[in-house]
Amino acid sequence: MTDPAITAATNHQFTLASRPQGAATRENFLWAGVPVEQPAEGGVLVKVLMLSLDPAMRGWLNEGRSYIPPVAIGEVMRAGGVGRVVASKNPAFAEGDMVYGTLGVQEYALVAGGDIQRSGLVKIDLNVGSASQWLNVLGMPGMTGYFGLLDVGQARAGDTVVVSGAAGAVGQTVGQLAKIKGCRAVGIAGGEAKCQWVVNELGFDACIDYKAGPQAVREGLKEHAPKGVDVYFDNVGGEILDTVMAKLARKARIVICGAISQYNNPNSAPAAGPKNYLSLLVNRARMEGMVVFDYADRYHLAIAEMGGYLKDGRMKSREDIVPGLENFPEALGRLFSGQNFGKLVLEVAKD
Amino acid sequence: MTDPAITAATNHQFTLASRPQGAATRENFLWAGVPVEQPAEGGVLVKVLMLSLDPAMRGWLNEGRSYIPPVAIGEVMRAGGVGRVVASKNPAFAEGDMVYGTLGVQEYALVAGGDIQRSGLVKIDLNVGSASQWLNVLGMPGMTGYFGLLDVGQARAGDTVVVSGAAGAVGQTVGQLAKIKGCRAVGIAGGEAKCQWVVNELGFDACIDYKAGPQAVREGLKEHAPKGVDVYFDNVGGEILDTVMAKLARKARIVICGAISQYNNPNSAPAAGPKNYLSLLVNRARMEGMVVFDYADRYHLAIAEMGGYLKDGRMKSREDIVPGLENFPEALGRLFSGQNFGKLVLEVAKD
Repeated sequence: MTDPAITAATNHQFTLASRPQGAATRENFLWAGVPVEQPAEGGVLVKVLMLSLDPAMRGWLNEGRSYIPPVAIGEVMRAGGVGRVVASKNPAFAEGDMVYGTLGVQEYALVAGGDIQRSGLVKIDLNVGSASQWLNVLGMPGMTGYFGLLDVGQARAGDTVVVSGAAGAVGQTVGQLAKIKGCRAVGIAGGEAKCQWVVNELGFDACIDYKAGPQAVREGLKEHAPKGVDVYFDNVGGEILDTVMAKLARKARIVICGAISQYNNPNSAPAAGPKNYLSLLVNRARMEGMVVFDYADRYHLAIAEMGGYLKDGRMKSREDIVPGLENFPEALGRLFSGQNFGKLVLEVAKD
Repeated sequence: MTDPAITAATNHQFTLASRPQGAATRENFLWAGVPVEQPAEGGVLVKVLMLSLDPAMRGWLNEGRSYIPPVAIGEVMRAGGVGRVVASKNPAFAEGDMVYGTLGVQEYALVAGGDIQRSGLVKIDLNVGSASQWLNVLGMPGMTGYFGLLDVGQARAGDTVVVSGAAGAVGQTVGQLAKIKGCRAVGIAGGEAKCQWVVNELGFDACIDYKAGPQAVREGLKEHAPKGVDVYFDNVGGEILDTVMAKLARKARIVICGAISQYNNPNSAPAAGPKNYLSLLVNRARMEGMVVFDYADRYHLAIAEMGGYLKDGRMKSREDIVPGLENFPEALGRLFSGQNFGKLVLEVAKD
């Protein structure tokens, strides 16, 4: 039943060759081609179309278990992605089904029957959102923004919500959702173009360009969060976290989603701790970490709600699509230099 | 009606002379005697018996508003204390009543009618606890421990609760209350004597001597909190906070009550931030600040409950009583060098 072209095809892939010190580069990965294998009973073969490039990937390259185990040396680099089932021996999936799952940085993902759940392989509906939106607002970044803002951050109408990485995948969801829920949304992003897009296209109330310096961030918060910050959704850590912590409102909630400014610290040095943490005491405020996987049993609710917002135009999304699997290492680097504009996606195949 | 001896008496007091850089010393205060004045309509004159010496006092000496305004230069140094009403023109208080309130570092506190509420002046019952216990487990430290552990820390039976400053005023309440609520209580204290007292007298499950070094704290936590720390009640900040953060259990709660290791930082330098704060992310944990005054409307409930524990012997208390108002500056210094053993109290008068 399988297309003979696929059977004869080579599966190009990036495996992890060495653990990076500082930023990951091409030298840390091995580019190889292996034969495409057919699924055994219960398994599925997926042709990878798009891969999600995320800050968390950098953490997976470090030795030592974090919230999930690291990628092993020699293992295909881990990545979530969207693909099309090209061969199935599992009754839950049919050839032609569009799926999301942990597919890896490769052209074809062979998911064994026993690995379907661990890979999070699920069918997706392209009528609800495009393939790249399924990696963005309907995918992990969107789920992170949704549950981080509403469950962990407890954002309520009237709150001032500040989000860093505002033009990124998580940030764009957080700010738009904050507006929909009746909050004031203030973004922090790098550069004038991102800031303008966030305000003019996404409808944030304001956006502060952190590249203008710490003083600009301080003044921006003073102007745009005059009563203090009720919810700070932190994707970046470092100096920006320090600055926002100096402007907390009473009973503020800080959602610790990530710390991209710290992920490339050499020798896995710990992130710089927030200098102003005693602001938590003075303001009776709270700082709480989140990992999106904890909310898996409620993803479907968030997808239904946000799919509705995409349909009725209350929510927009922007993806920064880099073509070519072979460009993976450099594409990943764009995240950490802030070069991406919107959710960073690697296009592996058109269809 | 007023005792002529009092009318003729001098009120000795310490006023703030200059703002300390680093530790506060005698040079920062002015020792003076002023005539005792009689209360006007609505006012009360209190003879001060015992004053509470607390880490928070150091913060009140810095310029700039924290959760309460700083003590002004020339103002009587702020302090909570227990005293006896010696003259009253307020129907709520009678001569001879024992009271608690913000009395100041002086022999006599004249509380004007309009200041009764701001001073938190309330009658206390010496049948529930001794005067020094009213500054300890039944006073602000006890209230801090009670609401910090149960409300902010959400301690539940079966949790492992770790508390720093375990032999101090707040720490002794936290650990004993944790035991009463069915938790495992692990203290961190300075020196073998404090550790032994906390375990043998107060019934903590274990106590780690931080003076044995960071490695000892790490190993102690490994041994005594093998499944990780569910609640960390932090009175000290600094390196101990870092070390505990590396041992958090999933969904841990850190209660930020104080950071005594950081209060004497020169030039009001900010406290050192917790290096391991991304442990909050990995462990989906939370760090939350508290200020005890927020719970004022429920003090009576905590006092009733803990008064019961004192009566039935399930809770003990220890106060370190330094006699002599004139010794205030040096007595305060004992807190920051960890010399006090139990709640530090300054005895101003016997009766």
